[in-house]
Amino acid sequence: MSKRYRATVEYDGTDFLGYQIQAAGRTVQGEIEKCLEQVTQSTVRIGSAGRTDAGVHATGQVIAFNVTWRHTIEDLHRALNATLAHDIVISDLKITDPEFHPRYSALSRTYQYRIVNQKWPSVLQRRYAYFVDRKLDVMAMNKACRFLLGSHDFASFGKPPQGSNTVRNVLKADWSATSCSELTFIITANAFLYRMVRIIVGTAVQVGLGRLAADEVKNVLEARDLTRSASPAPAHGLCLVDVAYPEASKKTSNKPGLM
Amino acid sequence: MSKRYRATVEYDGTDFLGYQIQAAGRTVQGEIEKCLEQVTQSTVRIGSAGRTDAGVHATGQVIAFNVTWRHTIEDLHRALNATLAHDIVISDLKITDPEFHPRYSALSRTYQYRIVNQKWPSVLQRRYAYFVDRKLDVMAMNKACRFLLGSHDFASFGKPPQGSNTVRNVLKADWSATSCSELTFIITANAFLYRMVRIIVGTAVQVGLGRLAADEVKNVLEARDLTRSASPAPAHGLCLVDVAYPEASKKTSNKPGLM
Repeated sequence: MSKRYRATVEYDGTDFLGYQIQAAGRTVQGEIEKCLEQVTQSTVRIGSAGRTDAGVHATGQVIAFNVTWRHTIEDLHRALNATLAHDIVISDLKITDPEFHPRYSALSRTYQYRIVNQKWPSVLQRRYAYFVDRKLDVMAMNKACRFLLGSHDFASFGKPPQGSNTVRNVLKADWSATSCSELTFIITANAFLYRMVRIIVGTAVQVGLGRLAADEVKNVLEARDLTRSASPAPAHGLCLVDVAYPEASKKTSNKPGLM
Repeated sequence: MSKRYRATVEYDGTDFLGYQIQAAGRTVQGEIEKCLEQVTQSTVRIGSAGRTDAGVHATGQVIAFNVTWRHTIEDLHRALNATLAHDIVISDLKITDPEFHPRYSALSRTYQYRIVNQKWPSVLQRRYAYFVDRKLDVMAMNKACRFLLGSHDFASFGKPPQGSNTVRNVLKADWSATSCSELTFIITANAFLYRMVRIIVGTAVQVGLGRLAADEVKNVLEARDLTRSASPAPAHGLCLVDVAYPEASKKTSNKPGLM
């Protein structure tokens, strides 16, 4: 009998054309569906919490799928990770409610954006952080991002998916200096528009460089005009780190932990 | 007129056969010497603080070389970084004393070793951390490493370079849990034997897994027998992070900072 599974997925976005399956080219969804087909010998369609762009990473992407599996969930987990490519791993796998949907059941998504802010690029961080060689004013960037908190029309910061409006509720938007040369941005919202995090980061960087006043971001938001914000920051600094669901969705059977 | 330069170098060791130049194959020293030759139009030999193994990374490798350069040091720095491969960067460049030698002038070296300790590997950390899937006892690992502090004969933990003995002075050897699933080891010594850090880490991991008692590491040290220690931990978790020099070596002209 088929059961519904919920998985947390980590991937290195560097070598993918994005999350969503396409007619041609390597995608995260395509790789996972191919793997599920190999392991379960049946065609499986997966749903996800968010369709990350080409180059965007994830540590907390959530997917769900129905499969028939006669062995333990632990066996399924091992088989999937043994079959997946080197740049995708399923970090958690549970049986979930038949009605659980990773996108529609989600309460909020959290993304992290990392910037290396020093004179010369860091070769060890080049795949996972955006390099900015002029000193950024973190306080000004935080001041600018405070205007985004709450429920607003974010038309200035992205386009909606088909059939959706541009109102989103931003619950958190914080820059912190995680070391003398590294900045980390954490943003949580009920949902995001297309490229919204990267456009917010691009705009915040303009503020950090002194090219845009922090207070001006309030006007950009109120203009509801995509041409008023900055270009999106590069994809490789971005990572989907968490998706939150109502408590009820957590009442699922945990796999036995090895640790 | 030729001047002596001192440079701090960061590299991603993944795609190198090691630091030291070889007859064939890509090495860090080979790439930097080729770059210096292109930029200065002369053959340049560089000295380094330490010859890291294949796959080992560095954020604080120190090199020195003599070149004749008619423009500013800032111009030299830019020209070198513009010419170097994508996985090497010179993060600092100064004019130094003619007698400065990155190896012989060094007081101590500091290495960092990172372990991801969770049930499934992290694909985002796979190039820079060793993955261990069973829970490690960090307290036991620290207890074991305390026996290594001070000046000892480390014959059980590595082979000396030609013409050197096996006595080394370990100034620091600390494991810390940098997150719920990441351990970081920092070790400082006046100098290290060949593969010494990786053999110490390999041995500490055996202690962390409960296969070797922490107190037994004292006996391993005192045995002065390389067969008593564990196999070296993998190279990709290791990074040369700092080399310390006497204050006098710091009285060199700093490059103008952009930040």
